[in-house]
Amino acid sequence: MKKNTKCPLKKSLRRILLYRGSLIRLQSLGVKKVYSYTLGKETGITPEQVRKDFSEYGIKGNQRGGYQVDQLITDLERIFYQNEHQNIIVVGRGNIGSSLASYQNFIQRQINIVATFDIDPSKQRMRSDIPVYDLDRLEEIIKRFSVRTAIIAVPYIAAQSVCDQLVKCEIEGIINFAPIILKVPNHIVVNNINLSDEIESVIYCVSRPHSKT
Amino acid sequence: MKKNTKCPLKKSLRRILLYRGSLIRLQSLGVKKVYSYTLGKETGITPEQVRKDFSEYGIKGNQRGGYQVDQLITDLERIFYQNEHQNIIVVGRGNIGSSLASYQNFIQRQINIVATFDIDPSKQRMRSDIPVYDLDRLEEIIKRFSVRTAIIAVPYIAAQSVCDQLVKCEIEGIINFAPIILKVPNHIVVNNINLSDEIESVIYCVSRPHSKT
Repeated sequence: MKKNTKCPLKKSLRRILLYRGSLIRLQSLGVKKVYSYTLGKETGITPEQVRKDFSEYGIKGNQRGGYQVDQLITDLERIFYQNEHQNIIVVGRGNIGSSLASYQNFIQRQINIVATFDIDPSKQRMRSDIPVYDLDRLEEIIKRFSVRTAIIAVPYIAAQSVCDQLVKCEIEGIINFAPIILKVPNHIVVNNINLSDEIESVIYCVSRPHSKT
Repeated sequence: MKKNTKCPLKKSLRRILLYRGSLIRLQSLGVKKVYSYTLGKETGITPEQVRKDFSEYGIKGNQRGGYQVDQLITDLERIFYQNEHQNIIVVGRGNIGSSLASYQNFIQRQINIVATFDIDPSKQRMRSDIPVYDLDRLEEIIKRFSVRTAIIAVPYIAAQSVCDQLVKCEIEGIINFAPIILKVPNHIVVNNINLSDEIESVIYCVSRPHSKT
Protein backbone atom coordinates (compact mmCIF):
# COMPACT_ATOMS: atom_id res chain seq x y z
CA MET A 1 0.00 0.00 0.00
CA LYS A 2 1.25 3.42 -0.90
CA LYS A 3 -0.16 6.78 0.09
CA ASN A 4 -1.20 9.83 -1.80
CA THR A 5 -0.90 8.45 -5.31
CA LYS A 6 -1.51 11.56 -7.37
CA CYS A 7 -2.92 11.53 -10.82
CA PRO A 8 0.10 11.28 -13.12
CA LEU A 9 -1.61 13.67 -15.48
CA LYS A 10 0.77 15.59 -17.65
CA LYS A 11 0.71 19.36 -17.38
CA SER A 12 0.17 19.58 -21.12
CA LEU A 13 -3.11 17.74 -20.67
CA ARG A 14 -4.25 20.22 -18.05
CA ARG A 15 -3.51 22.95 -20.58
CA ILE A 16 -5.47 21.04 -23.24
CA LEU A 17 -8.49 21.24 -20.92
CA LEU A 18 -7.95 25.00 -20.61
CA TYR A 19 -7.75 25.42 -24.37
CA ARG A 20 -10.91 23.46 -24.85
CA GLY A 21 -12.73 25.57 -22.25
CA SER A 22 -11.75 28.73 -24.09
CA LEU A 23 -12.64 27.28 -27.47
CA ILE A 24 -16.11 26.30 -26.34
CA ARG A 25 -16.61 29.85 -25.12
CA LEU A 26 -15.31 31.32 -28.39
CA GLN A 27 -17.51 28.91 -30.34
CA SER A 28 -20.57 30.12 -28.42
CA LEU A 29 -19.61 33.66 -29.43
CA GLY A 30 -19.63 32.62 -33.08
CA VAL A 31 -15.87 32.53 -33.61
CA LYS A 32 -14.96 30.15 -36.45
CA LYS A 33 -11.19 30.30 -36.57
CA VAL A 34 -8.48 30.90 -33.98
CA TYR A 35 -4.76 31.47 -33.93
CA SER A 36 -2.41 30.19 -31.27
CA TYR A 37 -1.90 33.73 -29.99
CA THR A 38 -5.68 34.18 -29.49
CA LEU A 39 -5.86 30.97 -27.49
CA GLY A 40 -2.74 31.98 -25.62
CA LYS A 41 -4.26 35.34 -24.72
CA GLU A 42 -7.46 33.66 -23.56
CA THR A 43 -5.70 31.12 -21.36
CA GLY A 44 -2.65 33.05 -20.21
CA ILE A 45 -0.30 30.62 -21.98
CA THR A 46 2.32 31.63 -24.55
CA PRO A 47 1.44 31.00 -28.24
CA GLU A 48 4.62 28.92 -28.57
CA GLN A 49 3.43 26.65 -25.77
CA VAL A 50 -0.01 26.36 -27.36
CA ARG A 51 1.51 25.22 -30.66
CA LYS A 52 3.88 22.84 -28.87
CA ASP A 53 1.03 21.25 -26.94
CA PHE A 54 -1.06 20.78 -30.06
CA SER A 55 1.79 19.25 -31.97
CA GLU A 56 2.46 16.86 -29.07
CA TYR A 57 -1.04 15.44 -29.58
CA GLY A 58 -0.79 15.45 -33.37
CA ILE A 59 -3.08 18.45 -33.92
CA LYS A 60 -2.10 20.49 -36.94
CA GLY A 61 -3.08 24.01 -37.93
CA ASN A 62 -3.07 25.24 -41.52
CA GLN A 63 -0.08 26.84 -43.26
CA ARG A 64 -0.63 30.22 -41.57
CA GLY A 65 -1.02 28.74 -38.10
CA GLY A 66 -4.78 29.07 -37.76
CA TYR A 67 -7.16 26.42 -36.49
CA GLN A 68 -10.85 25.79 -37.27
CA VAL A 69 -12.63 26.12 -33.92
CA ASP A 70 -15.10 23.23 -34.47
CA GLN A 71 -12.43 20.85 -35.70
CA LEU A 72 -10.05 21.83 -32.93
CA ILE A 73 -12.64 21.13 -30.24
CA THR A 74 -13.32 17.71 -31.79
CA ASP A 75 -9.60 16.96 -31.89
CA LEU A 76 -9.11 18.01 -28.26
CA GLU A 77 -12.15 16.00 -27.14
CA ARG A 78 -10.73 12.93 -28.82
CA ILE A 79 -7.71 13.08 -26.52
CA PHE A 80 -9.99 12.81 -23.52
CA TYR A 81 -12.92 10.72 -24.69
CA GLN A 82 -11.69 7.58 -26.26
CA ASN A 83 -14.46 5.83 -24.35
CA GLU A 84 -17.28 8.31 -25.00
CA HIS A 85 -19.48 8.84 -21.95
CA GLN A 86 -17.85 8.05 -18.66
CA ASN A 87 -20.07 6.67 -15.94
CA ILE A 88 -19.03 7.85 -12.51
CA ILE A 89 -20.53 7.70 -9.03
CA VAL A 90 -20.54 10.06 -6.06
CA VAL A 91 -20.33 8.67 -2.53
CA GLY A 92 -21.79 11.09 0.03
CA ARG A 93 -24.90 13.09 -0.70
CA GLY A 94 -24.22 16.04 1.58
CA ASN A 95 -23.68 19.57 0.30
CA ILE A 96 -20.74 18.83 -1.94
CA GLY A 97 -22.13 15.52 -3.22
CA SER A 98 -25.47 17.13 -4.03
CA SER A 99 -23.95 20.09 -5.76
CA LEU A 100 -21.82 17.75 -7.89
CA ALA A 101 -24.88 15.64 -8.70
CA SER A 102 -26.68 18.69 -10.06
CA TYR A 103 -23.71 20.38 -11.70
CA GLN A 104 -24.85 21.07 -15.27
CA ASN A 105 -21.38 21.41 -16.65
CA PHE A 106 -20.67 17.67 -16.32
CA ILE A 107 -23.37 16.76 -18.80
CA GLN A 108 -21.80 18.90 -21.51
CA ARG A 109 -18.49 17.29 -20.73
CA GLN A 110 -19.74 13.72 -21.18
CA ILE A 111 -19.25 13.00 -17.49
CA ASN A 112 -22.25 10.94 -16.49
CA ILE A 113 -23.03 10.62 -12.77
CA VAL A 114 -25.07 7.40 -12.76
CA ALA A 115 -25.63 7.10 -9.01
CA THR A 116 -24.91 8.63 -5.63
CA PHE A 117 -24.61 6.86 -2.29
CA ASP A 118 -25.31 7.83 1.29
CA ILE A 119 -25.74 5.95 4.54
CA ASP A 120 -28.61 8.26 5.58
CA PRO A 121 -31.96 6.56 4.73
CA SER A 122 -33.74 9.95 4.53
CA LYS A 123 -31.40 10.92 1.70
CA GLN A 124 -32.10 7.62 -0.04
CA ARG A 125 -35.81 8.56 -0.09
CA MET A 126 -35.08 12.05 -1.41
CA ARG A 127 -36.45 13.22 -4.76
CA SER A 128 -33.56 13.63 -7.16
CA ASP A 129 -32.75 13.12 -10.81
CA ILE A 130 -29.82 11.00 -9.77
CA PRO A 131 -30.73 8.14 -7.41
CA VAL A 132 -29.30 7.90 -3.89
CA TYR A 133 -28.47 4.33 -2.87
CA ASP A 134 -27.36 2.75 0.35
CA LEU A 135 -23.66 1.93 0.46
CA ASP A 136 -24.38 -1.80 0.47
CA ARG A 137 -25.37 -1.51 -3.20
CA LEU A 138 -21.99 -0.04 -4.17
CA GLU A 139 -20.62 -3.18 -5.80
CA GLU A 140 -23.81 -3.99 -7.70
CA ILE A 141 -24.08 -0.47 -9.22
CA ILE A 142 -20.37 -0.21 -10.02
CA LYS A 143 -20.55 -3.52 -11.92
CA ARG A 144 -23.83 -2.70 -13.67
CA PHE A 145 -22.63 0.63 -15.05
CA SER A 146 -18.97 -0.36 -15.56
CA VAL A 147 -17.91 2.49 -13.30
CA ARG A 148 -14.15 3.03 -13.04
CA THR A 149 -14.07 6.46 -11.38
CA ALA A 150 -15.69 7.57 -8.13
CA ILE A 151 -15.99 10.82 -6.22
CA ILE A 152 -15.65 10.73 -2.43
CA ALA A 153 -17.66 13.50 -0.77
CA VAL A 154 -18.19 12.08 2.71
CA PRO A 155 -17.00 13.52 6.04
CA TYR A 156 -13.28 12.93 6.60
CA ILE A 157 -13.95 10.42 9.35
CA ALA A 158 -15.64 8.08 6.84
CA ALA A 159 -13.44 8.77 3.82
CA GLN A 160 -10.81 6.04 4.25
CA SER A 161 -13.40 3.35 4.84
CA VAL A 162 -15.37 4.43 1.75
CA CYS A 163 -12.13 4.48 -0.21
CA ASP A 164 -11.31 0.92 0.90
CA GLN A 165 -14.75 -0.25 -0.24
CA LEU A 166 -14.30 1.44 -3.62
CA VAL A 167 -10.92 -0.19 -4.10
CA LYS A 168 -12.46 -3.57 -3.23
CA CYS A 169 -15.07 -2.93 -5.97
CA GLU A 170 -12.18 -2.38 -8.42
CA ILE A 171 -12.60 1.37 -8.83
CA GLU A 172 -9.44 2.72 -10.51
CA GLY A 173 -9.74 6.48 -10.12
CA ILE A 174 -10.86 8.58 -7.14
CA ILE A 175 -11.59 12.29 -6.82
CA ASN A 176 -11.45 12.96 -3.08
CA PHE A 177 -13.11 15.99 -1.53
CA ALA A 178 -12.58 14.81 2.06
CA PRO A 179 -9.77 16.71 3.80
CA ILE A 180 -7.67 13.61 4.37
CA ILE A 181 -4.88 11.85 2.51
CA LEU A 182 -6.25 8.50 1.41
CA LYS A 183 -4.21 5.33 1.59
CA VAL A 184 -4.65 3.41 -1.64
CA PRO A 185 -2.84 0.67 -3.57
CA ASN A 186 -0.25 1.85 -6.03
CA HIS A 187 -2.30 1.53 -9.20
CA ILE A 188 -5.20 3.70 -8.03
CA VAL A 189 -5.24 7.29 -9.30
CA VAL A 190 -6.27 9.80 -6.64
CA ASN A 191 -6.95 13.48 -7.16
CA ASN A 192 -7.36 15.28 -3.84
CA ILE A 193 -9.41 18.48 -3.90
CA ASN A 194 -9.25 20.23 -0.59
CA LEU A 195 -11.52 23.25 -0.90
CA SER A 196 -10.34 24.79 2.36
CA ASP A 197 -6.72 24.56 1.25
CA GLU A 198 -7.58 26.18 -2.07
CA ILE A 199 -9.27 29.09 -0.34
CA GLU A 200 -6.67 29.44 2.37
CA SER A 201 -3.88 29.60 -0.13
CA VAL A 202 -5.49 32.67 -1.70
CA ILE A 203 -6.15 34.22 1.72
CA TYR A 204 -2.49 33.68 2.54
CA CYS A 205 -1.43 35.44 -0.65
CA VAL A 206 -3.60 38.49 -0.05
CA SER A 207 -2.75 38.65 3.67
CA ARG A 208 0.93 39.22 3.10
CA PRO A 209 1.97 42.83 3.74
CA HIS A 210 2.54 43.40 0.03
CA SER A 211 0.85 41.03 -2.30
CA LYS A 212 1.61 43.31 -5.23
CA THR A 213 4.68 41.75 -6.76
CA MET B 1 -4.69 43.96 -17.66
CA LYS B 2 -3.15 40.51 -17.55
CA LYS B 3 -4.85 37.15 -17.71
CA ASN B 4 -4.86 34.12 -15.53
CA THR B 5 -2.82 35.49 -12.64
CA LYS B 6 -2.31 32.39 -10.54
CA CYS B 7 -1.77 32.44 -6.82
CA PRO B 8 1.99 32.61 -6.40
CA LEU B 9 1.71 30.23 -3.47
CA LYS B 10 4.84 28.29 -2.81
CA LYS B 11 4.66 24.52 -3.03
CA SER B 12 6.05 24.31 0.48
CA LEU B 13 2.98 26.17 1.74
CA ARG B 14 0.68 23.69 0.05
CA ARG B 15 2.57 20.96 1.85
CA ILE B 16 2.25 22.87 5.14
CA LEU B 17 -1.54 22.70 4.66
CA LEU B 18 -1.26 18.95 4.11
CA TYR B 19 0.82 18.49 7.27
CA ARG B 20 -1.68 20.47 9.27
CA GLY B 21 -4.55 18.38 7.94
CA SER B 22 -2.79 15.21 9.03
CA LEU B 23 -1.86 16.66 12.41
CA ILE B 24 -5.44 17.68 13.17
CA ARG B 25 -6.48 14.14 12.39
CA LEU B 26 -3.72 12.64 14.54
CA GLN B 27 -4.63 15.05 17.35
CA SER B 28 -8.25 13.89 17.20
CA LEU B 29 -6.94 10.32 17.62
CA GLY B 30 -5.11 11.33 20.80
CA VAL B 31 -1.60 11.40 19.34
CA LYS B 32 0.64 13.77 21.34
CA LYS B 33 3.96 13.60 19.53
CA VAL B 34 4.98 12.98 15.94
CA TYR B 35 8.17 12.41 14.00
CA SER B 36 8.86 13.67 10.53
CA TYR B 37 8.62 10.13 9.17
CA THR B 38 5.11 9.71 10.64
CA LEU B 39 3.97 12.93 9.00
CA GLY B 40 5.73 11.91 5.80
CA LYS B 41 3.93 8.55 5.80
CA GLU B 42 0.59 10.26 6.39
CA THR B 43 1.03 12.80 3.63
CA GLY B 44 3.07 10.86 1.09
CA ILE B 45 6.02 13.26 1.45
CA THR B 46 9.57 12.23 2.34
CA PRO B 47 10.66 12.85 5.97
CA GLU B 48 13.60 14.92 4.65
CA GLN B 49 11.18 17.20 2.84
CA VAL B 50 9.00 17.50 5.96
CA ARG B 51 11.98 18.63 8.04
CA LYS B 52 13.16 20.98 5.31
CA ASP B 53 9.72 22.60 5.05
CA PHE B 54 9.48 23.07 8.81
CA SER B 55 12.91 24.59 9.02
CA GLU B 56 12.06 26.99 6.18
CA TYR B 57 9.31 28.41 8.39
CA GLY B 58 11.43 28.38 11.54
CA ILE B 59 9.70 25.41 13.15
CA LYS B 60 12.06 23.35 15.27
CA GLY B 61 11.69 19.82 16.60
CA ASN B 62 13.48 18.61 19.73
CA GLN B 63 16.92 16.99 19.66
CA ARG B 64 15.58 13.64 18.50
CA GLY B 65 13.51 15.12 15.70
CA GLY B 66 10.10 14.79 17.32
CA TYR B 67 7.40 17.46 17.43
CA GLN B 68 4.62 18.09 19.96
CA VAL B 69 1.40 17.80 17.97
CA ASP B 70 -0.43 20.69 19.72
CA GLN B 71 2.51 23.05 19.42
CA LEU B 72 3.17 22.07 15.82
CA ILE B 73 -0.43 22.79 14.81
CA THR B 74 -0.21 26.21 16.48
CA ASP B 75 3.06 26.94 14.69
CA LEU B 76 1.64 25.92 11.32
CA GLU B 77 -1.54 27.94 11.87
CA ARG B 78 0.56 30.99 12.62
CA ILE B 79 2.03 30.84 9.11
CA PHE B 80 -1.47 31.15 7.69
CA TYR B 81 -3.38 33.23 10.16
CA GLN B 82 -1.54 36.36 10.91
CA ASN B 83 -4.85 38.18 10.69
CA GLU B 84 -6.99 35.71 12.66
CA HIS B 85 -10.43 35.19 11.11
CA GLN B 86 -10.66 35.99 7.44
CA ASN B 87 -13.92 37.39 6.18
CA ILE B 88 -14.76 36.22 2.71
CA ILE B 89 -17.82 36.41 0.46
CA VAL B 90 -19.35 34.07 -2.10
CA VAL B 91 -20.93 35.45 -5.27
CA GLY B 92 -23.49 33.04 -6.72
CA ARG B 93 -25.84 31.10 -4.53
CA GLY B 94 -26.42 28.15 -6.83
CA ASN B 95 -25.35 24.62 -5.97
CA ILE B 96 -21.67 25.29 -5.52
CA GLY B 97 -22.21 28.62 -3.73
CA SER B 98 -24.69 27.05 -1.34
CA SER B 99 -22.53 24.06 -0.61
CA LEU B 100 -19.59 26.38 0.14
CA ALA B 101 -21.83 28.51 2.38
CA SER B 102 -22.71 25.50 4.47
CA TYR B 103 -19.33 23.76 4.40
CA GLN B 104 -18.52 23.06 8.04
CA ASN B 105 -14.82 22.69 7.49
CA PHE B 106 -14.33 26.40 6.84
CA ILE B 107 -15.41 27.36 10.35
CA GLN B 108 -12.70 25.19 11.90
CA ARG B 109 -10.24 26.78 9.54
CA GLN B 110 -11.09 30.34 10.56
CA ILE B 111 -12.49 31.08 7.12
CA ASN B 112 -15.57 33.16 7.78
CA ILE B 113 -18.12 33.51 4.96
CA VAL B 114 -19.87 36.73 5.96
CA ALA B 115 -22.22 37.07 3.00
CA THR B 116 -23.32 35.54 -0.27
CA PHE B 117 -24.73 37.33 -3.32
CA ASP B 118 -27.12 36.36 -6.05
CA ILE B 119 -29.11 38.25 -8.67
CA ASP B 120 -32.12 35.96 -8.13
CA PRO B 121 -34.58 37.70 -5.71
CA SER B 122 -36.06 34.34 -4.62
CA LYS B 123 -32.64 33.33 -3.36
CA GLN B 124 -32.34 36.62 -1.52
CA ARG B 125 -35.52 35.73 0.39
CA MET B 126 -34.25 32.23 1.17
CA ARG B 127 -33.78 31.07 4.76
CA SER B 128 -30.08 30.62 5.39
CA ASP B 129 -27.53 31.10 8.15
CA ILE B 130 -25.50 33.20 5.76
CA PRO B 131 -27.46 36.08 4.18
CA VAL B 132 -27.99 36.32 0.42
CA TYR B 133 -27.75 39.89 -0.87
CA ASP B 134 -28.39 41.46 -4.23
CA LEU B 135 -25.23 42.23 -6.20
CA ASP B 136 -25.83 45.98 -5.83
CA ARG B 137 -24.83 45.68 -2.17
CA LEU B 138 -21.43 44.19 -3.04
CA GLU B 139 -19.39 47.29 -2.31
CA GLU B 140 -21.18 48.12 0.94
CA ILE B 141 -20.70 44.61 2.40
CA ILE B 142 -17.09 44.31 1.21
CA LYS B 143 -16.25 47.59 2.94
CA ARG B 144 -18.21 46.82 6.11
CA PHE B 145 -16.52 43.46 6.70
CA SER B 146 -13.10 44.40 5.29
CA VAL B 147 -13.35 41.56 2.81
CA ARG B 148 -10.24 41.00 0.70
CA THR B 149 -11.05 37.57 -0.77
CA ALA B 150 -14.10 36.48 -2.76
CA ILE B 151 -15.34 33.25 -4.26
CA ILE B 152 -16.96 33.35 -7.69
CA ALA B 153 -19.56 30.60 -8.10
CA VAL B 154 -21.75 32.02 -10.85
CA PRO B 155 -22.41 30.59 -14.33
CA TYR B 156 -19.47 31.14 -16.67
CA ILE B 157 -21.40 33.65 -18.71
CA ALA B 158 -21.58 36.01 -15.71
CA ALA B 159 -18.17 35.31 -14.21
CA GLN B 160 -16.09 38.00 -15.92
CA SER B 161 -18.60 40.71 -15.13
CA VAL B 162 -18.76 39.66 -11.46
CA CYS B 163 -14.97 39.56 -11.40
CA ASP B 164 -14.78 43.13 -12.79
CA GLN B 165 -17.16 44.33 -10.07
CA LEU B 166 -15.10 42.62 -7.37
CA VAL B 167 -11.92 44.21 -8.67
CA LYS B 168 -13.64 47.60 -8.63
CA CYS B 169 -14.53 46.99 -4.97
CA GLU B 170 -10.82 46.38 -4.28
CA ILE B 171 -11.00 42.65 -3.73
CA GLU B 172 -7.45 41.24 -3.86
CA GLY B 173 -7.94 37.50 -4.04
CA ILE B 174 -10.43 35.43 -6.04
CA ILE B 175 -11.26 31.74 -5.95
CA ASN B 176 -13.01 31.08 -9.24
CA PHE B 177 -15.27 28.06 -9.73
CA ALA B 178 -16.61 29.24 -13.09
CA PRO B 179 -15.08 27.31 -16.00
CA ILE B 180 -13.51 30.40 -17.57
CA ILE B 181 -10.15 32.11 -17.39
CA LEU B 182 -10.75 35.49 -15.74
CA LYS B 183 -9.04 38.63 -16.94
CA VAL B 184 -7.78 40.56 -13.94
CA PRO B 185 -5.21 43.27 -13.20
CA ASN B 186 -1.75 42.05 -12.38
CA HIS B 187 -1.91 42.40 -8.59
CA ILE B 188 -5.03 40.24 -8.14
CA VAL B 189 -4.47 36.65 -7.00
CA VAL B 190 -6.73 34.17 -8.77
CA ASN B 191 -7.09 30.48 -7.98
CA ASN B 192 -9.14 28.69 -10.64
CA ILE B 193 -10.90 25.53 -9.53
CA ASN B 194 -12.45 23.78 -12.48
CA LEU B 195 -14.28 20.78 -11.05
CA SER B 196 -14.94 19.25 -14.47
CA ASP B 197 -11.25 19.43 -15.34
CA GLU B 198 -10.31 17.81 -12.03
CA ILE B 199 -12.69 14.94 -12.65
CA GLU B 200 -11.81 14.56 -16.31
CA SER B 201 -8.13 14.36 -15.56
CA VAL B 202 -8.77 11.30 -13.37
CA ILE B 203 -11.06 9.77 -16.00
CA TYR B 204 -8.31 10.28 -18.56
CA CYS B 205 -5.81 8.49 -16.33
CA VAL B 206 -8.01 5.46 -15.75
CA SER B 207 -9.13 5.30 -19.38
CA ARG B 208 -5.68 4.70 -20.71
CA PRO B 209 -5.10 1.07 -21.80
CA HIS B 210 -2.73 0.54 -18.86
CA SER B 211 -3.02 2.95 -15.99
CA LYS B 212 -0.83 0.66 -13.86
CA THR B 213 2.60 2.19 -14.10
